[in-house]
Amino acid sequence: MPRDPRYDILFEPVKLGPVTAPNRFYQVPHCNGMGYAYPSSMAEMRGVKAEGGWGVVCTEEVEISHTSELAGYIEGRLWDDADIPILAKMVEKVHAHGALAGIEPAHLGMGAANNYSREVPMGPSARPVDMPEPIQARAMDKADIRAFRKMHVDAARRSKAAGFDVVYLYAGHDMTTLMHFLSRRRNDRMDEYGGSLENRVRLLRECLEDTKDAIGDTCCVAVRLAVDELMGSDGISCEAEGRDIIEMLAEIPDLWDVNVSTWEEDSKPSRFSEESFQTDYTSFVKSVTTKPVVGVGRFTSPDTMVSLIKSGKLDLIGAARPSIADPFLPKKVEEGRIEDIRECIGCNICVTADFIHVPLRCTQNPTMGEEWRKGWHPERIAPRHAEESVLIVGAGPAGLEAARALGQRGYEVTLAEGGNTVGGRVAVESQLPGLSAWRRVADYREYQISQMANVGVYLDSRLTADQVLEFGADHVVLATGAKWATSGIGRSHGYPIPAEAGARVMSPDEIMAGAAPEGPVVIFDDEHYYMAGALAEKLRVAGHEVSYVTPASDVSHWTHNTMEQGFIQARLMELGVQIIPLHTLTRIGADHVTLSCIYTGAQRDLAAGTVIPVTMREAQDELYQALIAREDAPASLMRIGDCLAPGTIAMAVYAGHRYARELGEPPAQGVPFRRELPELAKD
Amino acid sequence: MPRDPRYDILFEPVKLGPVTAPNRFYQVPHCNGMGYAYPSSMAEMRGVKAEGGWGVVCTEEVEISHTSELAGYIEGRLWDDADIPILAKMVEKVHAHGALAGIEPAHLGMGAANNYSREVPMGPSARPVDMPEPIQARAMDKADIRAFRKMHVDAARRSKAAGFDVVYLYAGHDMTTLMHFLSRRRNDRMDEYGGSLENRVRLLRECLEDTKDAIGDTCCVAVRLAVDELMGSDGISCEAEGRDIIEMLAEIPDLWDVNVSTWEEDSKPSRFSEESFQTDYTSFVKSVTTKPVVGVGRFTSPDTMVSLIKSGKLDLIGAARPSIADPFLPKKVEEGRIEDIRECIGCNICVTADFIHVPLRCTQNPTMGEEWRKGWHPERIAPRHAEESVLIVGAGPAGLEAARALGQRGYEVTLAEGGNTVGGRVAVESQLPGLSAWRRVADYREYQISQMANVGVYLDSRLTADQVLEFGADHVVLATGAKWATSGIGRSHGYPIPAEAGARVMSPDEIMAGAAPEGPVVIFDDEHYYMAGALAEKLRVAGHEVSYVTPASDVSHWTHNTMEQGFIQARLMELGVQIIPLHTLTRIGADHVTLSCIYTGAQRDLAAGTVIPVTMREAQDELYQALIAREDAPASLMRIGDCLAPGTIAMAVYAGHRYARELGEPPAQGVPFRRELPELAKD
Repeated sequence: MPRDPRYDILFEPVKLGPVTAPNRFYQVPHCNGMGYAYPSSMAEMRGVKAEGGWGVVCTEEVEISHTSELAGYIEGRLWDDADIPILAKMVEKVHAHGALAGIEPAHLGMGAANNYSREVPMGPSARPVDMPEPIQARAMDKADIRAFRKMHVDAARRSKAAGFDVVYLYAGHDMTTLMHFLSRRRNDRMDEYGGSLENRVRLLRECLEDTKDAIGDTCCVAVRLAVDELMGSDGISCEAEGRDIIEMLAEIPDLWDVNVSTWEEDSKPSRFSEESFQTDYTSFVKSVTTKPVVGVGRFTSPDTMVSLIKSGKLDLIGAARPSIADPFLPKKVEEGRIEDIRECIGCNICVTADFIHVPLRCTQNPTMGEEWRKGWHPERIAPRHAEESVLIVGAGPAGLEAARALGQRGYEVTLAEGGNTVGGRVAVESQLPGLSAWRRVADYREYQISQMANVGVYLDSRLTADQVLEFGADHVVLATGAKWATSGIGRSHGYPIPAEAGARVMSPDEIMAGAAPEGPVVIFDDEHYYMAGALAEKLRVAGHEVSYVTPASDVSHWTHNTMEQGFIQARLMELGVQIIPLHTLTRIGADHVTLSCIYTGAQRDLAAGTVIPVTMREAQDELYQALIAREDAPASLMRIGDCLAPGTIAMAVYAGHRYARELGEPPAQGVPFRRELPELAKD
Repeated sequence: MPRDPRYDILFEPVKLGPVTAPNRFYQVPHCNGMGYAYPSSMAEMRGVKAEGGWGVVCTEEVEISHTSELAGYIEGRLWDDADIPILAKMVEKVHAHGALAGIEPAHLGMGAANNYSREVPMGPSARPVDMPEPIQARAMDKADIRAFRKMHVDAARRSKAAGFDVVYLYAGHDMTTLMHFLSRRRNDRMDEYGGSLENRVRLLRECLEDTKDAIGDTCCVAVRLAVDELMGSDGISCEAEGRDIIEMLAEIPDLWDVNVSTWEEDSKPSRFSEESFQTDYTSFVKSVTTKPVVGVGRFTSPDTMVSLIKSGKLDLIGAARPSIADPFLPKKVEEGRIEDIRECIGCNICVTADFIHVPLRCTQNPTMGEEWRKGWHPERIAPRHAEESVLIVGAGPAGLEAARALGQRGYEVTLAEGGNTVGGRVAVESQLPGLSAWRRVADYREYQISQMANVGVYLDSRLTADQVLEFGADHVVLATGAKWATSGIGRSHGYPIPAEAGARVMSPDEIMAGAAPEGPVVIFDDEHYYMAGALAEKLRVAGHEVSYVTPASDVSHWTHNTMEQGFIQARLMELGVQIIPLHTLTRIGADHVTLSCIYTGAQRDLAAGTVIPVTMREAQDELYQALIAREDAPASLMRIGDCLAPGTIAMAVYAGHRYARELGEPPAQGVPFRRELPELAKD
């Protein structure tokens, strides 16, 4: 299909100083958990994005010196010349598709504890580092500032040697020395680098000019700046110092990459922000500079993108998460395939990989992070190995993705769903407060399947073992999901929690299905992801008295990894949910529960009309058990997703995709992916 | 000096099945943050321990399959044949010194989230994994159990191929599938692998027999078992199932390696345990088996070791932390140099490296983790580069270690200390509750220096800039330490905390020096290591009313990394310290403070007669500033340790050692250590 002419503007080239971006789609720097540790994986992943049409594809933050490093976090490294070939590999992959390659050299300063190099951190003033280690940074003296400027010039020269087209100065996310100097609360220097804004901007200006001098003849020199820290007069704001900084430096960089505040705010999840949520803060920039401006806001709608360009708010459409969910988003716009865009759901599973120190993954895009090690491409897949049929039971995330990918391979696919809608847990959970965008997991796949003549979807079709066998598919795959357990068994309890007669225990599934609890509600969160917090919000908004009890030290503890924890706990507190951390639930009575302190074992009672344990889920594998008990069980029978082992939605989508990829392939012997091993020293 | 004959027993060889340990010093498996990521570093570190006289030197836990892996934690890997050369390198280094090499293959099962491989975890029953991820393990079926047994046999064969002498079955620390099967609270299977203890032991017995069959002809097959989980009848205990398990399998393994409970309990810090703290639990084992038994208990005293052997409690002296603090402990006993032993202080800084995912370090041994990448040896150091003198100002951890190492190099060293004792912060902090063993940092160095004719120590010698210059040393190094700040500036506050007239603010230094606070005490912990918790304990024990306020979610939050957090918070709660987490301190009044909720900003007042901010420290660098302001400033002038940037004691010792190593060396260009980079794929 030809491209809709109203999107033509997105495909205009944009001059970025001495280089030209082929279009307005710009993958801003983003972490990926691969960095220095998995460089082949990283290069291939970036290359796929260039193939997908992103006109500029950037690295993550790249440490410019061993004296400023974030280990165990896995970022890029440009510590010395040994790193050049590693980054050149990525450049090569990006250039192969006609895109520009960008790099974000970073000196983390008091943001880094230097846990690996054991060097003393430094920054504008002597302060504790931002990482949790009990380590302080020292204040830089003039020799340090000279060395710092040289580090940035060295990094720029090495970047150029590696072939990059766009080279950043990074003063964003409250993370780098260049930003720390800008900040009054971090910089109390008395010399010409502290005090007035002019002084605090001095180091950024010097590094910018140094970099321009060093490589500005052939490279675009960009500045990434947080123009508003969302802390009013205590920090930089778009009404005051953020604007002033842009005005001071307006025409020096070749490109302005602007965003807000910390990473938490910049990559805010869909539960707490809408598409384009940063535009109010960044749209002033274009009025202050003639240089091109790129900004972000979880953009997935081409219409939004066009409107931002036409209204003069941005020149380039920046994206991190949308480019992860769909590396081919630009190509799909270009080819008039808008409906094929796999939209980011804003769940921040991608971010968790950086915190857990493993390669990036994505709920929507199961190939993310697997491009090199498994050879998975987000758009291409091998044709079927034989003219065979597959019966998939269950149309949740795993079943839907298996159906979509098997359909793409050309199999005859039947997808049988017991309920009256597709989506499984996603259809249900997306009705929880703030999670409506998660519905996109089902929507994308439902539409894709609807376009495939070889995939049939049957609702209201709960199958028995007999029916499965009668159907006679060559392959049967069960994706029948899981239900929340009510026993209390989970992380804290190996045995069921004792419940007295009259105790009223309801499962999260019942609540999500609309059942109303009685009396004061006690939610026991022993899982620590979003469910218990979301249920507390839902029930409190519906007027119930709600207590949230958890052995963790705060609400929805694991969501520190999705950068949501602060937002969730604040919301529950503002709604009036009673929060009781550091306690486990040891007994459930008819009108109260007994709690036990995790430290001392001290017990206390709490009024409870209804108890909702959020502890673990039970695989719904009755159909599987019935089938394998039969002598005539299907020869090709598999469970995938939550009915094998409950996990995240991302895991279920991945499981469905993997099933489709591996069907008909010889079983893997040993490790089923390529490894990246360190070179072993000779001595 | 010849060895004291009473220690001869420690140097008897011990037969371990088909192999023989050359003595009774046994480095049990321990994590080190190097593992698969830094294999050259790991091999060299283990080799140094063998050189130091440990008769058996083991790996850390080594993952036997990609289906059971702990990433981002960096453990060993034996996923496939590609890992054999990596481990063979370590074996070679260990064998070079006549020691045996041991390996601990591990299948983590429901202990691992498989964050890197993305495989579904499995275990005896379907349960959430122990890692914080929202992921559940599936219950193993019979095919899984067969595959599991094969994994262990494959691992054993690969271990043998790599040259290991001792190969473990690992059923310890509540961490592995072999232990999960033993555990009633994790194993509710209805088949022959669940129910009775005999059934629960079945898998361990089968794997043990499989391994003996596969490699028992040439390798010692060891079992590592937690004989007591310290949870009474809810778990394994040395009175009941722990004893029964040993009885059931008594003569099958060639070696029993026994300990208690989880890692937190097994590697308990000195703040909460004494040397030999496990003996009460493990000493029964020798009465049940004729096979040799190794056990641990932070042993650093050769007399304790002899007593354990002679009293029939152990056959081999197991050690992890003491072998990290002093890799040459056995050699020093052997050579009659008991006073030279660098005793572990039990601070668990070593453990933090595993949690932070960087190579091991040690407060006492600054060369730990630097053996390969910097070529640092714990006992050897290059002689001085010239006949020169060094003046060290300050005899804290940095100054003492610099003096010791420079003395070892042969320099003329003068150590001038302003106070009337050596040790600096260690001398003071070791008087806090539970920290007396930390004094060893000073004791070891004080003794070493006392044996050196070329090192002079001068107490009560607070030097002025004039005096330093008059002294005329070739090199001047300042190690003048730091003091706690009282401004409130730190992680939460970029600006000072406002204090009203009459507010009484005391620093941790004043409290440690014996000053008594007035009225209710509020300790504000914005640092999160041990100081605030230890002060709260000290003051509460002295009878003060104490509130502990912190923006963190629990007490001494960073001590999760030293595995102390649970012990510290329990102690404070039991003492009656009022704990107010998730709040910051926003104003200090004459008789109260104002607290602010970190989520909502809601404010509350709290009675306070004295406020003790534990937020950051200020380098005591007045002497440095005075010296560099002079035109005749010393040409060779450096700051090290806390007077450059306050950090951990380990960092200060490291800084002192590094200064001594690098004196007279040409300044490093670029990265001052060898790197271990991944091989870059060709495609």
